[in-house]
Amino acid sequence: MGRIAYLLFAVVAVSGAVYIANASGHSDGETAPIFGVTIPPGYRDWKLVSVAHEEGNLNDLRALLGNDMAINAYREEKLPFPDGTIIARLAWSYVPSEENNKVFGRDQSFVAGAPTNVQFMVKDSRKYAATGGWGFAQFKDGKPADAPLLKTCFPCHEPVKARDFVFTRYAP
Amino acid sequence: MGRIAYLLFAVVAVSGAVYIANASGHSDGETAPIFGVTIPPGYRDWKLVSVAHEEGNLNDLRALLGNDMAINAYREEKLPFPDGTIIARLAWSYVPSEENNKVFGRDQSFVAGAPTNVQFMVKDSRKYAATGGWGFAQFKDGKPADAPLLKTCFPCHEPVKARDFVFTRYAP
Repeated sequence: MGRIAYLLFAVVAVSGAVYIANASGHSDGETAPIFGVTIPPGYRDWKLVSVAHEEGNLNDLRALLGNDMAINAYREEKLPFPDGTIIARLAWSYVPSEENNKVFGRDQSFVAGAPTNVQFMVKDSRKYAATGGWGFAQFKDGKPADAPLLKTCFPCHEPVKARDFVFTRYAP
Repeated sequence: MGRIAYLLFAVVAVSGAVYIANASGHSDGETAPIFGVTIPPGYRDWKLVSVAHEEGNLNDLRALLGNDMAINAYREEKLPFPDGTIIARLAWSYVPSEENNKVFGRDQSFVAGAPTNVQFMVKDSRKYAATGGWGFAQFKDGKPADAPLLKTCFPCHEPVKARDFVFTRYAP
């Protein structure tokens, strides 16, 4: 009985630690500069907002995912996004698929290759008041981008102030 | 007390009905021919497998989503996919974004426009034994595609028999 009580205590202690880590939004990874954003745990499981393709230097296929707050706000067309919203932009290199092209009988198919980087917009209207209520971060292989790059985020997003600085629309 | 008991019963009855509807995989929509697949409830909330772009007549941006069975099998690299797996292919028209291009300073950005159609692969190794264990369906605005179109699905997927007839790889 002494052993069982000990085991139960250990499980509760571990669960508590996991809960605290998730509730605070912190992962074990590094913290990005300026806005202090870390990679949100479980973001790869979030629901899909939309997809896109960028040519040029980026040359990627991308998916926008949102936490439940983001998805609910999108679906209810609620602006501004509420505090706690996080939008994730995943991207992968833009790769022609020989396998798919053979089946289609022509060169037309492009798929996601290696991941390039992942970006996050985190809504906290007080903490990030100077940048429209949004904190910005970018990570490549878990490593945060530096401050000069993150300083370019908000100026680029300013043209879509009417949509709370978020470019991507929800794809039904 | 009599009223409380009645209310509790009503809630349980409704929950039961919802559970049965979800467990059977049936929605209120029409049933596609040949394989008898209906639109799986809640598929738009499923996790992302990957994204792609098709040129040519399709000219779309697409996202592959999977139910939990699909996602687990992908992440654990388990083949064949277990019975109960459903993979959804959503697609939207491929639309240049003037708004994004202005910000980037060049024509490079393509986003998801109107939805084109949605396809499903449903794994049931007994029911669909003649087609590699997969049932196929396509819906446009909730209306199922006809039998001649669905007959083309499996022959196209046969070249990827080694990956259990699934083209799309998981994008990390």
